[in-house]
Amino acid sequence: MEEIENTEVEEGLTPPDKEEIARILADESDGALKEYLEPLHPADIAELLMLLPDEDDWPRVIKYLNDEDASLVLEELPEHQRQKMVHFLSTQRLSAIVGEMDTDDAADLLAELPDKQVETILHSMDEEDAEDIQQLMSYPDDSAGGIMQTELASMESTLTVREAIASLREMHQEIEELRHIYVTDKDGKFLGLVPIIRLLYADQDTTLDDLKEPAVITVPPQLDQEDVARLFRKYDLVSMPVVDENEVLLGRILIDDVVDVLDEEASEDMLRFVGTSSEDLVYGNKIFSIIMRRLPWLVSNLLGGLITGYLITKFDNIKLLDAMILISFVPVITAMAGNMGSQSATIVIRGFALGKVQLHNLSRTFIRELLVGLSIGLICGILVGSIGAIHNGAPLVGIIVGTSMMISMTTAALMGVAVPSFFKLIGTDPAIASGPLVTTVLDITGILIYLANTQLLLTLLA
Amino acid sequence: MEEIENTEVEEGLTPPDKEEIARILADESDGALKEYLEPLHPADIAELLMLLPDEDDWPRVIKYLNDEDASLVLEELPEHQRQKMVHFLSTQRLSAIVGEMDTDDAADLLAELPDKQVETILHSMDEEDAEDIQQLMSYPDDSAGGIMQTELASMESTLTVREAIASLREMHQEIEELRHIYVTDKDGKFLGLVPIIRLLYADQDTTLDDLKEPAVITVPPQLDQEDVARLFRKYDLVSMPVVDENEVLLGRILIDDVVDVLDEEASEDMLRFVGTSSEDLVYGNKIFSIIMRRLPWLVSNLLGGLITGYLITKFDNIKLLDAMILISFVPVITAMAGNMGSQSATIVIRGFALGKVQLHNLSRTFIRELLVGLSIGLICGILVGSIGAIHNGAPLVGIIVGTSMMISMTTAALMGVAVPSFFKLIGTDPAIASGPLVTTVLDITGILIYLANTQLLLTLLA
Repeated sequence: MEEIENTEVEEGLTPPDKEEIARILADESDGALKEYLEPLHPADIAELLMLLPDEDDWPRVIKYLNDEDASLVLEELPEHQRQKMVHFLSTQRLSAIVGEMDTDDAADLLAELPDKQVETILHSMDEEDAEDIQQLMSYPDDSAGGIMQTELASMESTLTVREAIASLREMHQEIEELRHIYVTDKDGKFLGLVPIIRLLYADQDTTLDDLKEPAVITVPPQLDQEDVARLFRKYDLVSMPVVDENEVLLGRILIDDVVDVLDEEASEDMLRFVGTSSEDLVYGNKIFSIIMRRLPWLVSNLLGGLITGYLITKFDNIKLLDAMILISFVPVITAMAGNMGSQSATIVIRGFALGKVQLHNLSRTFIRELLVGLSIGLICGILVGSIGAIHNGAPLVGIIVGTSMMISMTTAALMGVAVPSFFKLIGTDPAIASGPLVTTVLDITGILIYLANTQLLLTLLA
Repeated sequence: MEEIENTEVEEGLTPPDKEEIARILADESDGALKEYLEPLHPADIAELLMLLPDEDDWPRVIKYLNDEDASLVLEELPEHQRQKMVHFLSTQRLSAIVGEMDTDDAADLLAELPDKQVETILHSMDEEDAEDIQQLMSYPDDSAGGIMQTELASMESTLTVREAIASLREMHQEIEELRHIYVTDKDGKFLGLVPIIRLLYADQDTTLDDLKEPAVITVPPQLDQEDVARLFRKYDLVSMPVVDENEVLLGRILIDDVVDVLDEEASEDMLRFVGTSSEDLVYGNKIFSIIMRRLPWLVSNLLGGLITGYLITKFDNIKLLDAMILISFVPVITAMAGNMGSQSATIVIRGFALGKVQLHNLSRTFIRELLVGLSIGLICGILVGSIGAIHNGAPLVGIIVGTSMMISMTTAALMGVAVPSFFKLIGTDPAIASGPLVTTVLDITGILIYLANTQLLLTLLA
């Protein structure tokens, strides 16, 4: 926890409005600006930067930040805004700022910079830190190794409480969130944890070996960050040791990094569900990149729409009944099937994300959605069928429309389960464009069901 | 952190399969069951319970849990499963189990029980704890008061370090996550925090008043849990003091409760987006409740589908062009508008949830979506228009279809921003059924645009 002024909040902090910003910037001696920045938390300074009307005002704010605050502001900015801030910093200043960062955040930042600048910055740093950062940069972004940090209080098990307290004295200024001593053997193999509070009461000559408790769980650096998040959630953890295949301690993951993962994953799932992705591109201002991101799925759905339209004209070939009457029920059948399918797909996708639905217990979800689809399909079928029969004065139309509705809604519920499960089975993210894909497939199958059912019933009943 | 065996994880823990469970349950002397339960974390025991083939096997597992483990298992179970476990516990045992819980979890559990049972349980408890729990139960579920706990190390500022360490000695067995002393004046007014680690180095006669640091933020108990989560995220907090209007300390919120809030809110947003809600009902097995939850929105969308169908028949009135040709492009126009609108709506909803889009900077999002909608609409319009012109050998059809497509996709992007923003403006959750609502509205406007545009162009060009 930083030493920062207490800010009282009633309904969440409100960022400054345009007039306030204009007032602060109007004073060219920067007096108003300095006064405004003084009590601000780095997260609020990041927010202020993004609200500045003119990029050229960024350096005015940045120059009043000390290196530590500047490092925190950089971490708070979204990627494309971070690039902007980096652009206003000399490599020398940037080196100083990176030096203030935790290794995991430093590695994330450096991964975004050009190789040459990275080299200069690493060269200017303490050798050990530079090595740690390079090691962290070698792990994939979305793995346990990619979100862990190497800052932790690691001590050998033979140390006494007295010695441990002495070592901690130096560390605790530098390491945030110091709550446990990570106990290892002389080769760095992880043995367990000692909560700091136990040092207050333990005999000064006890060794850490006697005080250590096993960790609830340790993870390898390759583990996917989604799995890391799931384990944090499942076991209510606040930190997690990362070890290599020989159980040598590599680093720790803290819960605040996991919070970011959870947000990232939830956003990704929602955006992928509608056939787009990558927050930064979506919230950013690069119109061309945004279009290239969103267009492919839309265009592939174009084909689905054209097929649906082509199928509609097939109703013209049906004898005995007015094509226009039959066609007028196409939208309600395809829309309801689409909604039903999206509901089922969302439930399954979210269930996978939270670990509540798993491939091995999928049959339960499948049966439940079948029953739900059948029941809701029956209700909607009767409703629309009645409208069809009464409005057109033709019971036959009602029967055809009602049964088609029921069949296509039930099919929709099942396909809503099947499509994301299929993606999960082949190892792809189940959220990938399940929305548009499911809707398009259901549009086509909905009409095919309607067409086939109409032909069938006309043969049987007419 | 509990004292639990270290479990190594390669790809996340795998729950036992059916054969394993059958093997464990086959031994009627419960020898295999006891051996299996012995090293399990309560979260894994909760998972095991949900996998048991027969409800009647629950008591066999429950009876081997001590009260503390049973309390943790109860907390891990989803609501409808928790009810099942409670059903197998005597009120006496349940009282003992609730006694082991943190006040916030106890309050959540009691809120789910019948009044009479709650009274008996509260009566059996320590009077102070019972009062705390009743106080917590008075706050709404989704407020800061609803997720805070009253367990914390609160001490008066006049205490010396020596006295503080002595008091802590008793507390630290009972209170999890003891990392700060919450310093108050003699009336309970919150003054600041002292990290436990500082007690290791401070002079024994220093008072807490000299060591205290201000909290980054304090919140009132009425604050919505979504705002609490946003503040935790923004300021990278791990705990947060809750104070009343006189700054009297009421409790603290820990980050693991916030992780649950984030998951809850993300699920809620996704489920509401497709017109359903409440995880427990959706993942549960109460088919009737699930149907009642999902049906209303589906039925109200029925009307939209019927209107769309009715509008389609209006193409029959258009002279000069074949109605069937025009109708065959209705699905592609409405589907693409629907997809475009869903993308925009999802981006805005997620942006609101993360605080990246706000009402006061909405114009930026509006303009960006306008440009994206216009560009993608232009590309799709040219594509579909060309297909229309070539396939039907009629340039006029191509022009009509292409321009209609472009106009309706641009409109869709703007409505995708407008609908959730409207809900946000009137203080409703912007995710509420934006999915089906946006799609339905866009189906209708898409056709209206297509109809009007056709009439207009025929008048101008033909």
